[in-house]
Amino acid sequence: MKANNIRLALAYDGSCYHGWQRQKNAITIQGTIEEKIEMMTGDPVRLIGSGRTDAGVHAVKQVCNFMTHSTIAPEAIREGLNALLPEDIFVREADYVPLEFHARYGARSKTYVYKILNRREPDIFRRHFLWHVRVPLDPREMSLCLAQLKGTHDFSCFRSSGSGNIDPVRRILRSELCDSADGSMDVILEADGFLRHMVRNVVGTLVEVGMGKIGVDGFSEILASRDRRLAGMKAPAHGLYLADVSY
Amino acid sequence: MKANNIRLALAYDGSCYHGWQRQKNAITIQGTIEEKIEMMTGDPVRLIGSGRTDAGVHAVKQVCNFMTHSTIAPEAIREGLNALLPEDIFVREADYVPLEFHARYGARSKTYVYKILNRREPDIFRRHFLWHVRVPLDPREMSLCLAQLKGTHDFSCFRSSGSGNIDPVRRILRSELCDSADGSMDVILEADGFLRHMVRNVVGTLVEVGMGKIGVDGFSEILASRDRRLAGMKAPAHGLYLADVSY
Repeated sequence: MKANNIRLALAYDGSCYHGWQRQKNAITIQGTIEEKIEMMTGDPVRLIGSGRTDAGVHAVKQVCNFMTHSTIAPEAIREGLNALLPEDIFVREADYVPLEFHARYGARSKTYVYKILNRREPDIFRRHFLWHVRVPLDPREMSLCLAQLKGTHDFSCFRSSGSGNIDPVRRILRSELCDSADGSMDVILEADGFLRHMVRNVVGTLVEVGMGKIGVDGFSEILASRDRRLAGMKAPAHGLYLADVSY
Repeated sequence: MKANNIRLALAYDGSCYHGWQRQKNAITIQGTIEEKIEMMTGDPVRLIGSGRTDAGVHAVKQVCNFMTHSTIAPEAIREGLNALLPEDIFVREADYVPLEFHARYGARSKTYVYKILNRREPDIFRRHFLWHVRVPLDPREMSLCLAQLKGTHDFSCFRSSGSGNIDPVRRILRSELCDSADGSMDVILEADGFLRHMVRNVVGTLVEVGMGKIGVDGFSEILASRDRRLAGMKAPAHGLYLADVSY
């Protein structure tokens, strides 16, 4: 029987999930979608994501793929999954891809957006979707630090423990601070890969820069130190979005 | 003992509440806030809202007041309540008002905003905060109908039953369709008062206009008929916001 390789592009609100990766006794994005694909195709399936997202982290565009013997057309899979899935997961796109397409190994870069609401009053309607920082932040200082991240660096200082012995060198293709149309201050990071909690550790340190606790030179020293203990706090999960994956 | 009259301006996400009004066996906005005020002042309190909001309806600015013998300053009440209240209710303002101020009887007009997302793809991050209408709507036709509502009319056709025998005549001061910066299509209605479910019944009918099911002339006939059976569907609660109250 001929196998098909189907690529999905997903959006999800990660608030109610224990992250992307399937776990035995916890509800995860991967596990939830696999279950619905199995309901549709009748066969066990293994969904390959471009990477994991942590508990509470959202996705505007997560890319994944799965092999199936089912002949259900991608558009019908998209519609069917959207009918079956809870309303906090949405399949934006579904299409056939070549058999060799692999959502994780094929990814050239990933873009994360971290949304900060920097004002006195919270936005109760978006309390699960951005990090509310009441203290006024200096965007100029933060941008100067972000600019330092561009290029290839050893990011050990921004890596949380528990990520194993993998190479801590990553190449940052884009690192910017943007004023979003919806009123938030967005940190945008595109890289060929990310270490564990890297974006949240960068953003937490940047916020300390914005508060004046760490200077631009201090930030350079942290990056050069490769020492996690020197960097700032870890930003909370709920401001973080996987925004795009390039192949 | 001298009594103080304290005015509060509130924002709330109505998703998890059985509306504004206190009920015996249900969690409501009024009941939740009264409980926290009582915790702070030690005395029973009666919170007077500018009006009720239904289950699932939100507020960007609801105004209310309460009498108290407590001498806690309004700013401390604001900070204290925000520390005690769940994160889906926020006290934006608190101040002393004259003893004769009454949030309900003193209200000259109220403004409601109804947010419609009119595109194919849902916005999963705002699924509790706007009405997703996939079918393309014609904003020109909808605006023409909205314009007809301005002025003084008998709104019996847009009143849900169960509102008692009250006078169905209301004066609409503002009725507009706006493109919001956040991508939604907003119906804005300001009036000296609203009948039960009036905004939701107007918006549901307007959406049928936008779909081409009801024409501009048909809309005029519905308004003139004073017959609820002729109007369109009732829009869901979760797109509706009490946006302002004028005194």
